[in-house]
Amino acid sequence: MATGSTRTIWWESADPDAAAVVIDQRCLPHWLVHARWETVHDAAAGIADMAVRGAPLIGVAAAYGMSLAARRDPSMLALERSGELLCATRPTAVNLKWAVRRCLDEAARHDESMRADALRTYAQFLADDDAEQCRRIGESGVGIIARLAEQLGRTVNVLTHCNAGRLACVEYGTATAPVYLAHRAGLDVHVWVSETRPRNQGAALTAWELADGGVPHTLVVDNAAGHLLMHGMVDLVIVGADRVAANGDTANKIGTSLKAYAAAQFGVPFYVALPWSTFDASCPDGDAIPIEERSPDEVLEVNGGPVAPAGTVARNWGFDVTPSAFVTAFLTPDGVFAPNSMLGAAPR
Amino acid sequence: MATGSTRTIWWESADPDAAAVVIDQRCLPHWLVHARWETVHDAAAGIADMAVRGAPLIGVAAAYGMSLAARRDPSMLALERSGELLCATRPTAVNLKWAVRRCLDEAARHDESMRADALRTYAQFLADDDAEQCRRIGESGVGIIARLAEQLGRTVNVLTHCNAGRLACVEYGTATAPVYLAHRAGLDVHVWVSETRPRNQGAALTAWELADGGVPHTLVVDNAAGHLLMHGMVDLVIVGADRVAANGDTANKIGTSLKAYAAAQFGVPFYVALPWSTFDASCPDGDAIPIEERSPDEVLEVNGGPVAPAGTVARNWGFDVTPSAFVTAFLTPDGVFAPNSMLGAAPR
Repeated sequence: MATGSTRTIWWESADPDAAAVVIDQRCLPHWLVHARWETVHDAAAGIADMAVRGAPLIGVAAAYGMSLAARRDPSMLALERSGELLCATRPTAVNLKWAVRRCLDEAARHDESMRADALRTYAQFLADDDAEQCRRIGESGVGIIARLAEQLGRTVNVLTHCNAGRLACVEYGTATAPVYLAHRAGLDVHVWVSETRPRNQGAALTAWELADGGVPHTLVVDNAAGHLLMHGMVDLVIVGADRVAANGDTANKIGTSLKAYAAAQFGVPFYVALPWSTFDASCPDGDAIPIEERSPDEVLEVNGGPVAPAGTVARNWGFDVTPSAFVTAFLTPDGVFAPNSMLGAAPR
Repeated sequence: MATGSTRTIWWESADPDAAAVVIDQRCLPHWLVHARWETVHDAAAGIADMAVRGAPLIGVAAAYGMSLAARRDPSMLALERSGELLCATRPTAVNLKWAVRRCLDEAARHDESMRADALRTYAQFLADDDAEQCRRIGESGVGIIARLAEQLGRTVNVLTHCNAGRLACVEYGTATAPVYLAHRAGLDVHVWVSETRPRNQGAALTAWELADGGVPHTLVVDNAAGHLLMHGMVDLVIVGADRVAANGDTANKIGTSLKAYAAAQFGVPFYVALPWSTFDASCPDGDAIPIEERSPDEVLEVNGGPVAPAGTVARNWGFDVTPSAFVTAFLTPDGVFAPNSMLGAAPR
């Protein structure tokens, strides 16, 4: 790939004092900037200011931060304080707390003198594990693309929404993993990238990472999905998920459900790609998933300028729920599952 | 209303030499600027540069332009040249040619000395007629809102898309006409305004004119419709149309069909408001409606800045087709018609 790496976070070298390096996503899509983190404060600032974003990546980034903390002061007291610092950066991010907890457990298993090395290795392990989970999601989905390519004898057109790509993870992404594996296998695949108002993660991030990966793609407005589906220009839809309930109801970026309803109308399969951490067996259905409402400014302003009259009231829900009846199947690290089989398939 | 007028074009005074006044829509939503047209060249420039837009309004504006032309030179030769000038401003606008043709026919019925007066009266007649057609569309729809208000005993929430409002017409608009009449009748009505990427006519124009008319409204991204419909926050959808085929298939701004599929899923009625000039009995169905593809720059740039990486390929269809099965009914100047009764109801 053009960046020379397909990862979003890595150690700068094998040197035990090497900095962590991340793609500063605030500069995308216009500039590819790598940020170097030398201290836990660098990591905390990078997470807080959204230099890195995406639930899986935030967790791994926190683990890198804990490793940097251990170099300065490997005492459990200091590490716990660093953990608090990191957790405070994005208070609602579950992966952050999960990663910090696991790093503290790992640290406690080692003598102080060994903790910096142990956490460095552990952060790398979490990164590798995230990449591996995503690669396995890709393996679950690539066969679907391969069969379509054979049936159709032409380019397979995938429609996606938002960025459930490698930029939200360590590598591969979730919704994009089957596409990257298909592209790598030489299959003729093309992605329709939905711009994803109001934050334009499709236009800014998905378009960037597909270009970086050499995957053919075309940007469209969110409104275009009905036209594309009606005219046979989409062979399958693959999206990510923020939370999947026990019955398969799927919360994902606002606008996802509109694509699902339209796909059903034209018999186009609709897949949701997810790591098991996104499946919430304790949540019975979509009604139980809280939907975050965000600042109206995201709707009212684009590129620093207003799009509506001064004083306009706007509302800005971040997610919607796609009813499980509209999900053809879930692509998981352990294979492809129908909505009604997810509860049985999920690891305990 | 705040502007003191609910019209988009009018004569500045009763003086036969009075200028035509229009709302310069290029300045909306941030500034309300009235442009004065004193010559046919002013009118042609205003139409070409999209100071006025919307099929019905463009036709009426051309008639005002022909009237201005007749003041300078009322000979048929000069009027025909002025007609050509006006028709060349927006080559694909059917209403433009129709209005110019009718003005030339009207001019030919009068002596040269009377033509300026005759065309001034005729332009006013066309404006009045457009407003009357829209008012009658409103009469067709207001009863639906009134019944919902009575049934629900609370605010009636309308979802619309793009600007099928008074700014596209002379007064009332098409999709907005039932809303204005309901508001004027004291019914408690609220409009969800879908921003309508890529050109944001919802955010810029519909939000402006509803604010100007004092109608409560809230701006949302196009992606929000599924969430609103799922949660009972929409009681009816009303959209305009660019062309309705004989079978009721409806071409309208891209993204309209996504709202129709989602509305059907939640049993929310979906209405299309149109003047008869939009009904094309010669077009059998949606497959026969050509869909204009516009510049990708509209997708790639917002407020003068890029939203995607340099070099991104984008596509930009202006319209989509909503299958007639998803249209609950059509709101016309002559009443409410089911899709399968439109051909019989249309004036010959």
